[in-house]
Amino acid sequence: MKEIKDEIESGKVNYDGYEDIHSLIELELEKKLPRVAGKIHTGRSRNDQIVTDELLFLKSAIAETMDRIVRLLDSLADKAEKNFDLVFPAYTHMQKAQPVMVAHYLLSYCEKFLRSAGKLAANFESCDFLPLGSGACSGSGYPINRELLAKILKFGNLSSNSMDAVSSREYIMDYIYSCTVIMQNLSRFCEDLIIFNTQEFSYIEISDAFCTGSSIMPQKKNPDILELIRGKSALVAGNLMQILTLMKGLPLVYNSDMQEDKKILFDAIRETNSSIEIFTEFLGNMEFNRGKLLQSCKTGFMDATDAADYLVRKGMAFREAHNTVGRIVAYCIDNDITLSETGLQILKQYSQLFEEDFYGSIEIGSCIDAKVTGCGTSRESVRKNLHDTKSGLKKLYEKLDFLNSRIPDFDNILYLWIKSN
Amino acid sequence: MKEIKDEIESGKVNYDGYEDIHSLIELELEKKLPRVAGKIHTGRSRNDQIVTDELLFLKSAIAETMDRIVRLLDSLADKAEKNFDLVFPAYTHMQKAQPVMVAHYLLSYCEKFLRSAGKLAANFESCDFLPLGSGACSGSGYPINRELLAKILKFGNLSSNSMDAVSSREYIMDYIYSCTVIMQNLSRFCEDLIIFNTQEFSYIEISDAFCTGSSIMPQKKNPDILELIRGKSALVAGNLMQILTLMKGLPLVYNSDMQEDKKILFDAIRETNSSIEIFTEFLGNMEFNRGKLLQSCKTGFMDATDAADYLVRKGMAFREAHNTVGRIVAYCIDNDITLSETGLQILKQYSQLFEEDFYGSIEIGSCIDAKVTGCGTSRESVRKNLHDTKSGLKKLYEKLDFLNSRIPDFDNILYLWIKSN
Amino acid sequence: MKEIKDEIESGKVNYDGYEDIHSLIELELEKKLPRVAGKIHTGRSRNDQIVTDELLFLKSAIAETMDRIVRLLDSLADKAEKNFDLVFPAYTHMQKAQPVMVAHYLLSYCEKFLRSAGKLAANFESCDFLPLGSGACSGSGYPINRELLAKILKFGNLSSNSMDAVSSREYIMDYIYSCTVIMQNLSRFCEDLIIFNTQEFSYIEISDAFCTGSSIMPQKKNPDILELIRGKSALVAGNLMQILTLMKGLPLVYNSDMQEDKKILFDAIRETNSSIEIFTEFLGNMEFNRGKLLQSCKTGFMDATDAADYLVRKGMAFREAHNTVGRIVAYCIDNDITLSETGLQILKQYSQLFEEDFYGSIEIGSCIDAKVTGCGTSRESVRKNLHDTKSGLKKLYEKLDFLNSRIPDFDNILYLWIKSN
Amino acid sequence: MKEIKDEIESGKVNYDGYEDIHSLIELELEKKLPRVAGKIHTGRSRNDQIVTDELLFLKSAIAETMDRIVRLLDSLADKAEKNFDLVFPAYTHMQKAQPVMVAHYLLSYCEKFLRSAGKLAANFESCDFLPLGSGACSGSGYPINRELLAKILKFGNLSSNSMDAVSSREYIMDYIYSCTVIMQNLSRFCEDLIIFNTQEFSYIEISDAFCTGSSIMPQKKNPDILELIRGKSALVAGNLMQILTLMKGLPLVYNSDMQEDKKILFDAIRETNSSIEIFTEFLGNMEFNRGKLLQSCKTGFMDATDAADYLVRKGMAFREAHNTVGRIVAYCIDNDITLSETGLQILKQYSQLFEEDFYGSIEIGSCIDAKVTGCGTSRESVRKNLHDTKSGLKKLYEKLDFLNSRIPDFDNILYLWIKSN
Repeated sequence: MKEIKDEIESGKVNYDGYEDIHSLIELELEKKLPRVAGKIHTGRSRNDQIVTDELLFLKSAIAETMDRIVRLLDSLADKAEKNFDLVFPAYTHMQKAQPVMVAHYLLSYCEKFLRSAGKLAANFESCDFLPLGSGACSGSGYPINRELLAKILKFGNLSSNSMDAVSSREYIMDYIYSCTVIMQNLSRFCEDLIIFNTQEFSYIEISDAFCTGSSIMPQKKNPDILELIRGKSALVAGNLMQILTLMKGLPLVYNSDMQEDKKILFDAIRETNSSIEIFTEFLGNMEFNRGKLLQSCKTGFMDATDAADYLVRKGMAFREAHNTVGRIVAYCIDNDITLSETGLQILKQYSQLFEEDFYGSIEIGSCIDAKVTGCGTSRESVRKNLHDTKSGLKKLYEKLDFLNSRIPDFDNILYLWIKSN
Repeated sequence: MKEIKDEIESGKVNYDGYEDIHSLIELELEKKLPRVAGKIHTGRSRNDQIVTDELLFLKSAIAETMDRIVRLLDSLADKAEKNFDLVFPAYTHMQKAQPVMVAHYLLSYCEKFLRSAGKLAANFESCDFLPLGSGACSGSGYPINRELLAKILKFGNLSSNSMDAVSSREYIMDYIYSCTVIMQNLSRFCEDLIIFNTQEFSYIEISDAFCTGSSIMPQKKNPDILELIRGKSALVAGNLMQILTLMKGLPLVYNSDMQEDKKILFDAIRETNSSIEIFTEFLGNMEFNRGKLLQSCKTGFMDATDAADYLVRKGMAFREAHNTVGRIVAYCIDNDITLSETGLQILKQYSQLFEEDFYGSIEIGSCIDAKVTGCGTSRESVRKNLHDTKSGLKKLYEKLDFLNSRIPDFDNILYLWIKSN
Repeated sequence: MKEIKDEIESGKVNYDGYEDIHSLIELELEKKLPRVAGKIHTGRSRNDQIVTDELLFLKSAIAETMDRIVRLLDSLADKAEKNFDLVFPAYTHMQKAQPVMVAHYLLSYCEKFLRSAGKLAANFESCDFLPLGSGACSGSGYPINRELLAKILKFGNLSSNSMDAVSSREYIMDYIYSCTVIMQNLSRFCEDLIIFNTQEFSYIEISDAFCTGSSIMPQKKNPDILELIRGKSALVAGNLMQILTLMKGLPLVYNSDMQEDKKILFDAIRETNSSIEIFTEFLGNMEFNRGKLLQSCKTGFMDATDAADYLVRKGMAFREAHNTVGRIVAYCIDNDITLSETGLQILKQYSQLFEEDFYGSIEIGSCIDAKVTGCGTSRESVRKNLHDTKSGLKKLYEKLDFLNSRIPDFDNILYLWIKSN
Repeated sequence: MKEIKDEIESGKVNYDGYEDIHSLIELELEKKLPRVAGKIHTGRSRNDQIVTDELLFLKSAIAETMDRIVRLLDSLADKAEKNFDLVFPAYTHMQKAQPVMVAHYLLSYCEKFLRSAGKLAANFESCDFLPLGSGACSGSGYPINRELLAKILKFGNLSSNSMDAVSSREYIMDYIYSCTVIMQNLSRFCEDLIIFNTQEFSYIEISDAFCTGSSIMPQKKNPDILELIRGKSALVAGNLMQILTLMKGLPLVYNSDMQEDKKILFDAIRETNSSIEIFTEFLGNMEFNRGKLLQSCKTGFMDATDAADYLVRKGMAFREAHNTVGRIVAYCIDNDITLSETGLQILKQYSQLFEEDFYGSIEIGSCIDAKVTGCGTSRESVRKNLHDTKSGLKKLYEKLDFLNSRIPDFDNILYLWIKSN
């Protein structure tokens, strides 16, 4: 078998004469061991063999995707820690809303990718059953030792119904769905960064290696990588649609339409894995523009919510406080000043509750720390969120090791098999 | 609050004057309790409130979908048990392949729907976190008691990052993906049954209540219900595509595009829940056509694999046995006879290994029971599969009860709230 | 028939007792004219009748969509004319690239919507055939006068193959595809305007009626309408996917899956028509922020291309000119000046070809007018493009009248029918 | 340029050093003609060049797809002619409905593919404009001769707005939409034939070259080719979704996401062209099973409609005739006889209108020819439909020649260019 593998890899085997890879191996083996070759297909069918191959392939692919997700999370947590002192505007409707810690923003993507890792781990488990013994669809007439096969191929479970095993491609769909969600979140991250990279926002500095420029306009930094990943998210969503449309309305048990699943799967894996990898490299070479972030926080009345909260703390009802501050902001806009530049006398015209301590309460640090709910952007909450993310990450590394330990080493399988006989 | 609810339900409230349901409630409350109404929005934002509403709604919806899946599984297991003596052809490429027990076929769909139930249970867990306290995106400035809120609303966890909580709609996607997979499997089941219902196959009898006919051709039984469900699987797959395309490339945190998620979600729920329900009713009113199944098993040389297995058991290599039987089948076709009608003398011309016991080995019962692998169609394996399915089903009923116990009873929430203060 | 219509519209008819609208009409008619009712279905089948209904409905729907597109084009051309003096940056990769006339930008969307109008006109033609006479699938046994029916129902052609007529839904797909492309272009337009509406760009002023704000931050203008339309583009693309997946792999001739086409079609029409309409209203209430546009053109070295073109006109090879200007821009960035602020002496250090006329050549007006290719942004070209757009628009109005003249007036059809008999 | 082309094709050029094909050509040319190379990019940008390349590529691709459609139509018309005497059941809801000529069935697909050819011709026209002169987005500063370029590259029109030209990919979407519709219709045709190929229907005989079998069951003919094409229809529909999702919400003018359009386009072309080609070959090697078709027409009461029509011709109201025949069919089913085996005395018990001529009116030939509407399945109508299809086909061949004459011969372009200067 090893000889055949080497011959295939060295390009010595001409594929044209064979119906598929299964026939090829049997017929090549026949040239070497004529009496053994005729027995190799005993107790199996191409229908259960292809599912076995796909499951083995998927277990590796899932572990590889998770490996990349883990590295991305690592990079994000690291970035959050290194930029722990930075604050910038959070946007709703692409309008400045409230100041948040940059770390808080980065950790919000950690939450998303931690969920992705959870999805991938579930995908791995859904691939962890041995389909051999299903035959073409009704089971096999040979008393093959499924427990032993499962042990050698490191499958944790045995399939329980042969017709289900050869007719389903749910394990592929589930994985491509996870890829689609990962790409979705990457596409949103890319969109954020493309906007942050405009000259108008200028929140980030992209490394030259990750953007194409224009030799004529050296200041122009086209975020090609980010745009390409955003584009590739459309490809992978399309792959999901392909596998779903492919299987829709197919009668049981097996139909050749299902052969197309491999092209779809390979496309999805390639785009997803490369996108996560390149994005992680990109992040590592991107810096936040401190000066610009600071300046950006000063405009846009992002302290208005905190101003209203100040009044509520002093006893005003929420809705009334909200309206009062609204009128003050309107006054500020007319006079082109900020809330903190508005004198106490003016403020008192709107409400007698304003006192000198108001100015401290709307300082950027105060605004940040005033978000007392555990999930908010106060330094304390974010520090805890960062700590929990790192703990989660540590568990993910262990999980990944565990998954990798359940993928067979194919170079040794034959040896194990011989030994066990 | 109860008064307002009653007024809405009785149609007394005119929606036109309000921006959304949140404003409506606040302003209607203001008419009744002017001093309290202004405080109702304290410590929350429409952004975290809508996520809370969606999660609460989804928990109910998921439990309802699972309830329908459980009933479908119940009906399938019951049908498998009642038709345990029936055998019919399994098809690959829509060509007769091998005989299988009808119960084996039905249980293969049980496997699929058991996986769906597993997906739904995971969906429920992904909805089990309290987002309140996230505010518009950065957390809330009010020290709201999140633990208490979670207890009252029966959420098991607290969201850990406010920006993630208000920006994600992954929980909706995950559920719609599960719906898509459920509809996929239903669409395949429908396809099978539509084919079985043709005059050419005639494997099943559909109850008149579930098909439209033609008054001019009373024997024509159009399987409308099955076709409609197959069609609806396309609608739900399109809903998945809608939510994925909707969210693609949206910058954080909140954008109004996300409002469209509700239309998509409601469509998916309605089509999925009604399809499972109607399909289950359909199954309960469908009968297998025993005579036709029996007759169908006799043609198509479905015993050829077993004939080859016979030779292998007698010592022939698999590939040689396969080719030998192929030549015999060709002979049978030329002479328009079946394998069991071929005399021993003739058989011996192809191989001296044939003996009188050959005829018993290709009887339909022998073919069935010869599939000795645990996942195969032997009566023993199928009985075990049925038993395991019933055990799984019992656990599912318990699971469903457990999920239902984690959905709050909204009529009592206000009371609980008051008591807790 | 008119009485029945009135009864349906006034809610007097209880739908429950009827299989479909065709049966309802026949049975309601039977109550009024028992002897006539039994004849109403002569020479037709529900299969050819539903196609007839859909085609008639589509012709109206297409004309309505085109009506909205024409109004949008009108509004765009008007806006281009009124803002003919405005210039702003064109973006590639969301980076400032070159200055263009605002009118040039608006007219680029006119091109897109003119193509949409062309698509809709083609859709109308593809609906212009009478399917009656196809019966259930094989034609009708009654010598119905198809020419007369076509004349009354204003169909220009007769279907030529009954099996094609009742099995195809291509006319629906084609129209939904057009809707998808229209929504695509609207979604891109919305994306542009959402970005232009950020505080960082501030290129446009949105009317208060078309955005929600925050009472606490009156300067915050959430472009809800634009976000909703961008979101609805995902819904319509999903509708296209639904109809495509619905029909995939359906055997001829008719299957009940096809009933679901109506829900899909109605959804697509509603979202598309309302989106175009609201967007047009939005445009009419949006203004460009002249001061901000002017200021924006001064930064970003958008005159760099023109500086290079200057050198090429003086005899330098393109690539060399490109590189030379690149080095000068780098110098400018280091010294925080613009190209026009760079002294001639400095420029001559980079190339002796620079002369005093260089400064005029990179004035914004010169940059604009230097784009001499007919499709470019020079005032002359844009004026011609505007003129051509208006001519195209005038033809579209005539086209629309022509289409409307080919839609039957249902209130008079019965009268026409009676007269013709 | 020719040298460079040869070097690329012979694998001598190492791609790694170049940003894209445009840079490669310029830099390779620089090695050969250093003074000319720097001028090659004058008056153009990669943004307008790539659109030019795509349009030229598409014109060829569209012509190739149309070429395949024309051959398929040719083969269908030929098949219809050769099987003009065959009749078989048309199906609704996969239930036997009415007898139709096999030619009528085949010509119904001709209608569908004739529409496809019309779509492709429209696609070709939408690609027939020269975008050069658009520059990066605002036009070019060089007075390039667009009329001459258009003449040399055989474009019939000039783009009128540079921002539209570089921002749109509608021409790709339109073509992929056409591919999707073609694949849809192929998928339905395949579904029909897969069903016809079951042992239960046995309407067709597939050539061994186009199906895989089982050496053990030589009678098993797996219609792999048909299943694969049905599967590939899902891939192409996914490609359409990919390009639509890719472009959704992209701001003007150019973003690198758009680079992914090529992968999507190439996939769609490859699958579509190969599917049409293989399907056409398949058809040429497929035969109808005359005996089986004949036998199939005798069961299923497909003459019931004609029996009712008989009564209507004798004066009975349609609905009453319909019900009367329904009762007779019920009687036949109970007595296991056909309509033509029911004696006149029995018939007269249901209606006195029955006479001896009834039996002739329900003979298969009578049923066929009774469909008097021009689109029906009477021999006369089908003959006319066939004749019209052939006329349409002849025009298509001319159309194809015309399209091909508008595709430039790239090997001679340089020569033309030189000559024109």
